[in-house]
Amino acid sequence: MINLETIQAAHDRVRAHIHRTPVLTNQTINHLSGASIYFKPENLQKIGAFKARGGLNAVLQLAEQERYYGRALGPITTHSSGNHAQAVAFAARQVGVKAYIVMPRTAPQVKKEAVIGYGAEVIECEPTLEAREAGVQEVIERTGAVLIHPFDDDRVIAGQATASKELIEDTESEGPLDVIMAPVGGGGLLSGTALATHFLSPHTRVIAGEPQGAADAVLSFQSGKVEKAPYIKTIADGLMTSLSERTLGYIREHVTGILTVSDAEIVAAMRLVWERMKIIIEPSSAVPLAALFKNKEQFAGQKIGMILTGGNVDLGKLPF
Amino acid sequence: MINLETIQAAHDRVRAHIHRTPVLTNQTINHLSGASIYFKPENLQKIGAFKARGGLNAVLQLAEQERYYGRALGPITTHSSGNHAQAVAFAARQVGVKAYIVMPRTAPQVKKEAVIGYGAEVIECEPTLEAREAGVQEVIERTGAVLIHPFDDDRVIAGQATASKELIEDTESEGPLDVIMAPVGGGGLLSGTALATHFLSPHTRVIAGEPQGAADAVLSFQSGKVEKAPYIKTIADGLMTSLSERTLGYIREHVTGILTVSDAEIVAAMRLVWERMKIIIEPSSAVPLAALFKNKEQFAGQKIGMILTGGNVDLGKLPF
Repeated sequence: MINLETIQAAHDRVRAHIHRTPVLTNQTINHLSGASIYFKPENLQKIGAFKARGGLNAVLQLAEQERYYGRALGPITTHSSGNHAQAVAFAARQVGVKAYIVMPRTAPQVKKEAVIGYGAEVIECEPTLEAREAGVQEVIERTGAVLIHPFDDDRVIAGQATASKELIEDTESEGPLDVIMAPVGGGGLLSGTALATHFLSPHTRVIAGEPQGAADAVLSFQSGKVEKAPYIKTIADGLMTSLSERTLGYIREHVTGILTVSDAEIVAAMRLVWERMKIIIEPSSAVPLAALFKNKEQFAGQKIGMILTGGNVDLGKLPF
Repeated sequence: MINLETIQAAHDRVRAHIHRTPVLTNQTINHLSGASIYFKPENLQKIGAFKARGGLNAVLQLAEQERYYGRALGPITTHSSGNHAQAVAFAARQVGVKAYIVMPRTAPQVKKEAVIGYGAEVIECEPTLEAREAGVQEVIERTGAVLIHPFDDDRVIAGQATASKELIEDTESEGPLDVIMAPVGGGGLLSGTALATHFLSPHTRVIAGEPQGAADAVLSFQSGKVEKAPYIKTIADGLMTSLSERTLGYIREHVTGILTVSDAEIVAAMRLVWERMKIIIEPSSAVPLAALFKNKEQFAGQKIGMILTGGNVDLGKLPF
């Protein structure tokens, strides 16, 4: 169970290790959208993504527990092709433990190098979920490492919640936000966003954006069961995962709606942010802004908090 | 003459119209450079560049003077192919006066559209300094517009000084900066940086970066006379202008040194900022960081304030 104290404790735990990212506004984008948007640019966060928060909270909390029992934390592991790999490697370095990161051999070399740069060991596997899970299992059996799941973990979710906590605190002088928007993949960030908002700004609605090419969450949200996406094909490569029972539960309880967008709409929103805000966001980050533009009338004149999730893109492969 | 009160008054004047840009730090760039760098990302400023500060201060101060004499400010004008065009158009809109911006017909369409977007009238001319000055002269004779020079103007310089004022204020808790770095073109920003630093943090040195392909300031700094660059060919298109007597005077009095860098060094520093800081900076912005990397031993272990001047690049024409 995550409550207000859980989120406050997570924030106290991670605060010294992360950037308190600023709140950015942009007159042109407000003008074009008809809303007043307060961006939380987590692309400026350590490792270039909000995932540093969840990874850190999980690893620091594990280290605390072990200390309580008079033990030192042993190695940790995860599988990821993306930002969670860097988050766990970064968190492990912060507490001085060994991390084994199972990555598909098809993951970009630059991402593998970033993980190695944080001092972690990369173990390559075939690019299938089965091979990734088998790789992690092998690591656990061989080293006794503890798994840090990318989203199906309350410690990770409480860590991700700290982004919205800061956004709510840092926009307080403007009066309460009408809506906070975030993208949804596995649902860790969206769960944390919804919980932080529920406890800290209960009259603010939480609305998610999801790619049409990975539209599982919108179906699960409607049916109440964890559904598969009808098809998986989207430029928003951070959002291809399905929800878990845990994240679906939080989302059903505290989220108002999930809006889907096409890849063309995602790229247009992404380009607008690059051109007008001068910050680098990855396609997944642009999904909720694209959803806002697609549903302008729903948000007209409102104060919108918008979490920009990360900025890890390959500059050699831009969609524009 | 610019003194501490001039700079404070400029800040009070422009504050409500600009973003107080944050201070950003990056562990990887600190590690690679051997210094502790506090970035002031003016690419996140209104119009995407620090020039909003100088343009606003000049126009607001003009409006105040006219009000003092019971008159309304009339139209304003300038010639520019770059960020100053947008700055003057933006400032004019803020005070509700007409702006005529003379731009070379070869300027990128996107820049012309941005100026028009701020409600200014664009007057196209041939891409020579003579044609630009003649264009402005024609506007002045026809409309009575007042010229806002991009750098040879104490009001503009005092406005640019507010970027360093904020940087000094917002890094105070870290102890005084050893150095503040900025690029030099016409010398408006560098003059403002040097003056703000002289008055607010007198033990901090000011060191500029300049492209080898527009290396007039380093020569003028040595000789004490306004010199021409030996040749003009650089990717840092915001820094092609020569100093004026006024800016040379401020720079000779308050700047410690000017370091030159090649275009390859500029592009490498620019790419590093894009990849690791997830912000979009234009080549001119990367010049002082490139100068730091080229002279690492000179800055080792020091606290460096680094002004990132702007982020107005054409995403279709990246140098990487």
